[in-house]
Amino acid sequence: MTPTGFRTGAHPPASAYERDLDRTAANHAPLTPLTFLERTASVYPEHVAVVHGPTRHTYAELNDRCRRLAAGLAGLGVAPGDTVAIMAPNIPPLLEAHYGVPMAGAVLNALNYRLDAASIAFILEHGEATVLLADSEFAPVLREALAQTTRSIQVVDIQDDAFRGQHERLGSLTYEELLARADPAFVPYLPADEWQAIALNYTSGTTGNPKGVVYHHRGAHLNAVGNVLVWGMGHHPVYLWTLPMFHCNGWCFPWTIVLQAGTHVCLRRVEAGTIFAALAEERVTHLCGAPVIMGMLVNAPAAERRPFAQTVRMMTAASAPPAAVLEKVEALGIEVTHVYGLTEVYGPATVCAFHEAWRELPAAERASRLARQGVRYPVLEGLEVMDPATMEPVPADGATIGEIMMRGHDVMKGYLKNPEANATAFAGGWFHTGDLAVSHPDGYVEIRDRSKDIIISGGENISSIEVEGALYRHPDVLEAAVVARPDETWGESPCAFVTLRDGSTVTAADIIAHCRRELAHFKAPRTIVFGPLPKTSTGKVQKFQLRERARSLDTQD
Amino acid sequence: MTPTGFRTGAHPPASAYERDLDRTAANHAPLTPLTFLERTASVYPEHVAVVHGPTRHTYAELNDRCRRLAAGLAGLGVAPGDTVAIMAPNIPPLLEAHYGVPMAGAVLNALNYRLDAASIAFILEHGEATVLLADSEFAPVLREALAQTTRSIQVVDIQDDAFRGQHERLGSLTYEELLARADPAFVPYLPADEWQAIALNYTSGTTGNPKGVVYHHRGAHLNAVGNVLVWGMGHHPVYLWTLPMFHCNGWCFPWTIVLQAGTHVCLRRVEAGTIFAALAEERVTHLCGAPVIMGMLVNAPAAERRPFAQTVRMMTAASAPPAAVLEKVEALGIEVTHVYGLTEVYGPATVCAFHEAWRELPAAERASRLARQGVRYPVLEGLEVMDPATMEPVPADGATIGEIMMRGHDVMKGYLKNPEANATAFAGGWFHTGDLAVSHPDGYVEIRDRSKDIIISGGENISSIEVEGALYRHPDVLEAAVVARPDETWGESPCAFVTLRDGSTVTAADIIAHCRRELAHFKAPRTIVFGPLPKTSTGKVQKFQLRERARSLDTQD
Repeated sequence: MTPTGFRTGAHPPASAYERDLDRTAANHAPLTPLTFLERTASVYPEHVAVVHGPTRHTYAELNDRCRRLAAGLAGLGVAPGDTVAIMAPNIPPLLEAHYGVPMAGAVLNALNYRLDAASIAFILEHGEATVLLADSEFAPVLREALAQTTRSIQVVDIQDDAFRGQHERLGSLTYEELLARADPAFVPYLPADEWQAIALNYTSGTTGNPKGVVYHHRGAHLNAVGNVLVWGMGHHPVYLWTLPMFHCNGWCFPWTIVLQAGTHVCLRRVEAGTIFAALAEERVTHLCGAPVIMGMLVNAPAAERRPFAQTVRMMTAASAPPAAVLEKVEALGIEVTHVYGLTEVYGPATVCAFHEAWRELPAAERASRLARQGVRYPVLEGLEVMDPATMEPVPADGATIGEIMMRGHDVMKGYLKNPEANATAFAGGWFHTGDLAVSHPDGYVEIRDRSKDIIISGGENISSIEVEGALYRHPDVLEAAVVARPDETWGESPCAFVTLRDGSTVTAADIIAHCRRELAHFKAPRTIVFGPLPKTSTGKVQKFQLRERARSLDTQD
Repeated sequence: MTPTGFRTGAHPPASAYERDLDRTAANHAPLTPLTFLERTASVYPEHVAVVHGPTRHTYAELNDRCRRLAAGLAGLGVAPGDTVAIMAPNIPPLLEAHYGVPMAGAVLNALNYRLDAASIAFILEHGEATVLLADSEFAPVLREALAQTTRSIQVVDIQDDAFRGQHERLGSLTYEELLARADPAFVPYLPADEWQAIALNYTSGTTGNPKGVVYHHRGAHLNAVGNVLVWGMGHHPVYLWTLPMFHCNGWCFPWTIVLQAGTHVCLRRVEAGTIFAALAEERVTHLCGAPVIMGMLVNAPAAERRPFAQTVRMMTAASAPPAAVLEKVEALGIEVTHVYGLTEVYGPATVCAFHEAWRELPAAERASRLARQGVRYPVLEGLEVMDPATMEPVPADGATIGEIMMRGHDVMKGYLKNPEANATAFAGGWFHTGDLAVSHPDGYVEIRDRSKDIIISGGENISSIEVEGALYRHPDVLEAAVVARPDETWGESPCAFVTLRDGSTVTAADIIAHCRRELAHFKAPRTIVFGPLPKTSTGKVQKFQLRERARSLDTQD
């Protein structure tokens, strides 16, 4: 019996339903998102597919450019199964690469442009890239990275007009030249098997080398559909690219928006002024982004704000914004959907599915409902909070902590060249997220912590996220992160690293007293360290650094 | 090269993307619509799933009833791969059977309740039904059918309160007793393989024995998603059951509506008054049906009409309504989406995807755009109009006639126990629909005729549909059907069977003169026969009968 209360039943081989009814070319085709573009370009050739500043491409043009990209890459020698890397902000070539690269039979490896040269070199080497599409803004770091690899990688320079700096060259061919000289007789590929890889995304890796997460065509198709289903998305959405497209393939919206014949509004720079301009002028209907984007909008100076009439839907991931921010965002006319996922599951895999009845709740209670990670995407077949030792679901009591486990269509093909990591990640037939959570009586999941971030004090589990939540409710706290500090009496105790707002005169004792009012006393931090927080290239707090600092603190602190 | 301009490319087996990255229980699950119910019941347990007169079932209740049905069937001995037949109007047990039967591992065979006993007996025999769920309204014909089979079939009597007649019994157990006594410990099945059969639907078969079309779990899942995508359907639709659920599994909306956590509004009888009542009281947002339903609405007497405020979306199949009817329907607040399909492709597989620019067109021109069968569903991978002899697409000139061919996810597993029919239907790697059509310059497909209905006169093809269109434009013509009549000079000539409006005094010569004004002269019927038209149980005109009558007409006619 599976945790969702089912078992599998095979039809007997002798059944009439199993005789002379095999898959044929007529009734079976591999699932892929590539044919979304072929269909939309055929049905709505004149619809605007891409907006980038003054540039507008129709779907006929987008389709033509993607086919040319595939042909151009083939002309460079790219063959099925090869890896093509790209480093670019959210501009048309990165969107086009989501179709053009797999249409050359190859696998798209979109690089995080905040990485350092050594990390990039590792990824190019490990991912076996044969071609690198390089936006000229990142030429300096890419030049350094290429010098550190042993591979021979052909570089195609992307020269975006919206980039105001110098277009430093790494290769002998520009992206537009590649498209212009592409063989028009080239016939693009579809996957022979839906399990074939379509994309390769490296985890940010707070410790050790990043892992290469492989996506397949089937999952990319189903995830794209999942986004439509979860958002109840109609035809012709206008989607603003505030979420980096290198991040889980922009949570796969390059495929979702084309499926629904929408318009991609590109953004080279994500700033309050350009977002408001896009909302007002392009009549954006959907966008995604971390809570930092919400902060950008609600804190924007009046001069950068622009009124807009349409309702805007925003998807935000992982950590939900505090009630106060949520209210201000909604007052702007933006409805927020809270999702949660990981690179390993094509981005979001759970959604805090909304209930109309929640509209009647007081703001704080409503925000606490919305802050939960929620329920499975329809395209994820299994979501459970389990005791990883027994692989049994924890009781849905909103209190017992277990690990979030997932299974089904939306889970990666695996980590590239890493069978040990795959065996660990998929142990027991479930993907182990490493996130610790509770399951509420209504079945909604709520994250309490990362496995490695839990603090065990006197045998009691303390969720660092819960303590951080209490810290954030102090009006002078701008940022906070809590880790375990070794403690002779309790084993571990919570240690808080806190950034105060400018001009605050609050003391460590004030903060601790505040937490003791908010939390069970054993959960209140015993140590407070003021100062800025170390972060990864994707903006995640580097807790491993904080843990080292906590370990090295003088015991008198 | 496939007609859509692609080829398939396999990744080399030695590729890193193909090593140690096999399917596992964590990252691969069979596609099935069954888990839609599990998810929706878990997320929205209190949402109303089913309305049937005064009865209301929440999703928790629907899920419970479906699990009980599965358990009850298992208790009767139903095992994976068995067939469970049902004959019922659009009432809750038929909806529940769409989940409960496959949750018992079995295959659902929903029977057309307009069939005669001999046809039903053939289907029960050929489909190897082990259990029959029988609505008591149909007990007389089912009793007769059962007497004609050699099989031992257990009958469960469905006694619907909305049925006002006598509840004649065929078995010793009622449907509600089956649910009440079901083993609560029964664990329902999911398919071991997504290619497993989920449903069996017999074609109406205007000649010879009906063929059993087998649907699989993967196609049922994808078709359900396709309906959401094509309609741009949001969450919580309210769906009115005007389309018979036995017809291509209600075009698969039993699965679609649950996926979107909607409400099924059942209708034992489809009448204008009950439809208007549901629109007004249940605030129905979506419905499907043949153009006859539109006629019912626009011609309803004032006493049966009820105002409603919401916009209603209606999907109608195959033959689009005339411009005048379309305008009247839209004036009621109902937006029409025109789709086309066949039993063999899970119901609709093409949609006349709407363009906003069409709103500006004159009514007649707009209606002619909307009358086309359109473009492929996103879940159908291939749609072409081809010359069946060469399997090459015809030019997209709006004039050259070819046969509509389809391939991909949305095409049936095949015909049950009929390898010859499968070989013919899937010849050349495409499903042959038997429908003749043109492809317009914008890629939209428009049906001209069924293969067997085309009239070849003096070597020229004459579309019977085109001639019928001209006949329908005569104000006195109520119904018309055109078939080939053997002709010594021309080989064949068009012969029209016409039903006139009450009181009309129009003559055959008048009708022919009208057609010669509307059509190329060689296309005008040379023979007119007045009288009612013979129809199948699903309301289709039986052209094979008319063809026989045309053949037997005195040559002096």
